[in-house]
Formats: sequence, structure tokens, C-alpha cells
Amino acid sequence: MSLLVVGSVALDSVETPFGKADEVLGGSATYFSASASHQSPVQLVGVVGDDYPVDRLETLRERRIDLAGLEKTEGESFRWRGRYRHDLNSAETLETRLGVFSHFRPKLPDQFKSASYVFLANIDPRLQLQVLEQVEKPKFVACDTMNFWIESRRGDLLDLLAKVDLITLNDGEARQLTEKANLVQAARWILARGPKTVLIKKGEHGAFMFTNESIFYAPAYPLEAVFDTTGAGDSFAGGFMGYLARTNDLSEANMRRAVVIGSAMGSFVVEAFSITRLLSVTRDDIDRRVADFHRLVAFDQDMPS
Amino acid sequence: MSLLVVGSVALDSVETPFGKADEVLGGSATYFSASASHQSPVQLVGVVGDDYPVDRLETLRERRIDLAGLEKTEGESFRWRGRYRHDLNSAETLETRLGVFSHFRPKLPDQFKSASYVFLANIDPRLQLQVLEQVEKPKFVACDTMNFWIESRRGDLLDLLAKVDLITLNDGEARQLTEKANLVQAARWILARGPKTVLIKKGEHGAFMFTNESIFYAPAYPLEAVFDTTGAGDSFAGGFMGYLARTNDLSEANMRRAVVIGSAMGSFVVEAFSITRLLSVTRDDIDRRVADFHRLVAFDQDMPS
Repeated sequence: MSLLVVGSVALDSVETPFGKADEVLGGSATYFSASASHQSPVQLVGVVGDDYPVDRLETLRERRIDLAGLEKTEGESFRWRGRYRHDLNSAETLETRLGVFSHFRPKLPDQFKSASYVFLANIDPRLQLQVLEQVEKPKFVACDTMNFWIESRRGDLLDLLAKVDLITLNDGEARQLTEKANLVQAARWILARGPKTVLIKKGEHGAFMFTNESIFYAPAYPLEAVFDTTGAGDSFAGGFMGYLARTNDLSEANMRRAVVIGSAMGSFVVEAFSITRLLSVTRDDIDRRVADFHRLVAFDQDMPS
Repeated sequence: MSLLVVGSVALDSVETPFGKADEVLGGSATYFSASASHQSPVQLVGVVGDDYPVDRLETLRERRIDLAGLEKTEGESFRWRGRYRHDLNSAETLETRLGVFSHFRPKLPDQFKSASYVFLANIDPRLQLQVLEQVEKPKFVACDTMNFWIESRRGDLLDLLAKVDLITLNDGEARQLTEKANLVQAARWILARGPKTVLIKKGEHGAFMFTNESIFYAPAYPLEAVFDTTGAGDSFAGGFMGYLARTNDLSEANMRRAVVIGSAMGSFVVEAFSITRLLSVTRDDIDRRVADFHRLVAFDQDMPS
């Protein structure tokens, strides 16, 4: 089934204890599509300035990522500069230059309007709502958000919640949105406001999938070397949504598998800067990592007699 | 098989956002035995002052916890006073009065010297080593430790590492001991120094069991209400060691089950102050929680065709 993502396409400059990258491909829509493309074709909607090295996006086009919705407009592209310290858990933002992204008004090409699976990456909830109005009859809509929108666009975000099937956010954002310190209570609060599923990401501590009926938990893969955690959340979402779009099966069992695919993609992307590892990883690598996840948590609950 | 624990028996006074408890049963050996007693008889070695309300320990004796090694000596009992804030992840210690515990020289009653399973709770590594000298032929020895000993008794702790089968410590302590930020690297460092198994506890983020051959991960149970996290680590260890002592099976499959039993006990103890919940929980409750853990992480890795 067709999979649409709307989000940022940026140039990132990142420093970690292990190295430095300058003006590399970044942005939520970029990470999402590179990750999802292992599962499904992707339709991307975003905006870049006239300074963007669009030739570097060719590699995405070759991977069945349709860039017909990537608007190119006069001005500077979205740039983010950040630094990670020792623990790589949270980035320190050194500079954000929104550039043309600050005037982004997502406009779906006609051929994207029939998308079945829709991911509204982390942009202004008002824009997320405008995107939804352009999609004719989506089967499954998921959105991401962040602390900035929770604070400045709370009303719009609550309107959006009533219209999506799933929201993905990190634990700090879930607590901020719901004013509940306890994550189970936070998830219940969100579930009561629309989404049938809440995915709470905890970075190196894994991810929870909450529905009204059940809780599923997938750990983050215990890697011996983590290089750069930029884009891990969007890569997670890409693997998750890509798998759902490919299988077109919204059963709980399949959603659980989708979370594990997402976790696998999150565990790959952090092995290198930018989307490098997402491009080099193979279907075999992904299958092996999924099997590793299975072994990681497997136990036989029957006690010996 | 016989299970021996050496550790503290204390009186705790705890404040949490949900209530207050004054001079309730506490200490690592107390939590450990109350938890382990659901699986196995326990032999306890510790010390209390002449002010200790020993009649309140009767309930332990009734649960097959042998208190023959609980020394009663002149002076004040070990008292700890702490406060938990909103998130319950870490206690702020308001007061520690070691009392008679500062002169503790563990002496095993003759009938304890043949113990097969031994847990050296968090005490001075020199004392942990002295206990080991008194045990004739243990089958499986595990130890706990803390930041204070890692800093002040590093040499003794490294000596101890060479003599135990397993060490359990939290993620911060593992990083402190090994000077590795990455937990996989930290575990490898410890494994190279003696223990065949390293259990790294991450509080609400679950626990890892590392061996040279594999990694197992068990999440903490996502509880809707956490009341008081004091003793969670020792209750985890009690469930783990109690299960091993009961089944006397050190296969990886059984050690994995033991970790889940430990996680279950850790998830119960935080539901009330002191050891209250450990005493009220039933075998059925434990079995149900183990099944809940199984459902929590279960996924079918076969993709739909």
C-alpha cells in the first residue's frame, strides 16, 4: 500500500565523541523514507531551499522514494547543528536555521492524495492537520510531535490527536503532554483522546506500544558502539510504518512485528552519521537483527517440573 | 538447595509523594529473604542492635527464613531515612546511621557453612570475601555492590570479582566500576575479570543479563502506580537467587527464567512500603506476573507471506 510522509528535509552538522559530519542529509522525512524504503515505496512531501544539494537525493529516488512532493523554493534550506556528549542520549542543539522550512505549506501532488498509510513527521500540528485534509481516504495515520509544539500549539495538537490512529512521541514528551509522570497513565490519557495506539520511545531504553487492550515492549538493541543517535526516532517510525504499509495488516501481532522492525532500523541508523547505514543495510541484515531481538527477550515461562 | 544471604537488616523511614513510613523493616538481607522465601528456604546472616523490634521478624521465620545467623549486639540498629520525589527513580538519603552495622563481622553458624547458593548483598567487599572463606563448597555465588565500595575498596572488589559466579549492579555502578559509558563494553570488562554472568539493573528500564555467549533483557513491568522503590534491587536478587536455589539448574534457559522471576518480585515490592507486598503476594500472583512479562515482549518473528 502507498506510504506518504510529510516532514523536514535538512542539512545536519553533527559532532559526537567519535567524529564530525558537516552538512549531511538530515531531517525527519529523509530519515523516515530512507528507513521505510526497505519495506515499501515512499511518497515524500517537504521543502528545500535553492541551495540544497538535490543531486545527493538521487540515491533516495533510486530506492523507490518519490520526490514529486519535494518543493524547491527560493531561500536557505533548513539547517541543524548539534553536538552529542559522552552518553549520546540527547543532543545539544548549537544552531537551528529554519530557512524555507519556516514558510512550509505542505501541498500534496494529486497522485499522493490517495495514500493509504500516512506519517505526519514532527512539524507544526496546524500543518499536520492541513496535510490530513488533503489525503482522501487514508487507512492509517500516524503523527510525531515534540516539546515545542506541545507547549505552543497544544489546542491544535489535541485536535490532531482526535484524527490520527497512532501517535509516536518520546517519554519526556508524553509526560509533558499529559502532565503524568507515570508512562502507563500518560498512555491512557492519550488513548482517551483519539489514537488507538500510542508508541512511546525511550531512546536507549526501548519503546512501548500501548493500546486499550495491551502493552507491548521492545528494547533498544544493546550495541557495543553507538556513533550518532540523530534520526533514530524517525528511522524507527520509518521501519514501523514501512512494514505496516508493506503488509497492510493492522492486527496486534503484526503491529508488534512492525515495532521490532522499527527498533531494528533505529539500531542500524546510529551506527554511522546521517542516513549512511540506512542505505547500506540489507534485508538479510534486518532479518538477522529481528532474530537477535527475539533471542534478546526470549524466555520459556514453563518452570521445570 | 540451601540459599544463604549476608547483608543488612535495618529500620527504614521513607517519604514518597504517596505517603510516609517510619521505622519499618528494611535492609538488603531483609528484602532479599522476603522475596526469595517464595521460592526456597533462606539462611540469613546479619546484625541488629538491642533496640531492634525482633518480634517483627517472626513473620520471616514463619516463611522458612532461618535467623540463626542474625546476631544481636549491644548498640543501635542500622537506620536509613530517605525521600523519593515525583519520579521515584532515585532516593535522596536524608540520614544513614550505621550503628552496630559498622562493626559487622559476619560469622556463619556451622549449619550455614554448607550453603550451595550464596548471595553477598551490598556490604564491604572485605566482609564479602570473609564470608566466602567460611562457605565450604558453594555451587553458585553472587554479589551486589555500590558506588561507595567501588570508590573506596576497588582492590578488594576486584579480588571478589575473581571469586564469584555472578555480580549484580546497577547501570551507573557498572559504568563507574569499568569507566565505560557503553553498557555492553562495561559488561565485557567485568566478564573478563571473573564472573561468568553480569546482571545490570536499570531500575524502571529493566535489567540485562550478560554472559560471554549471550545477552538477555527483561523489562521492568510497566506499573500504573509505583509506591516506593526501596528494596527493588534486593527483591529482584531474591527472586532470581531463590528460583535458582529451588530449581538447582544453571542452564541459560533457567537463568533467563530466574531473571524474570526477579523482575516480577521487583515489580511487586514497589507496590507498597517495606516488605509488605512481598509478604502478601501469592504463588499465583507471581505466575500471573511472569505470564504478563511473556505477553509484554512476545512477538512472532515470522513475517506474513
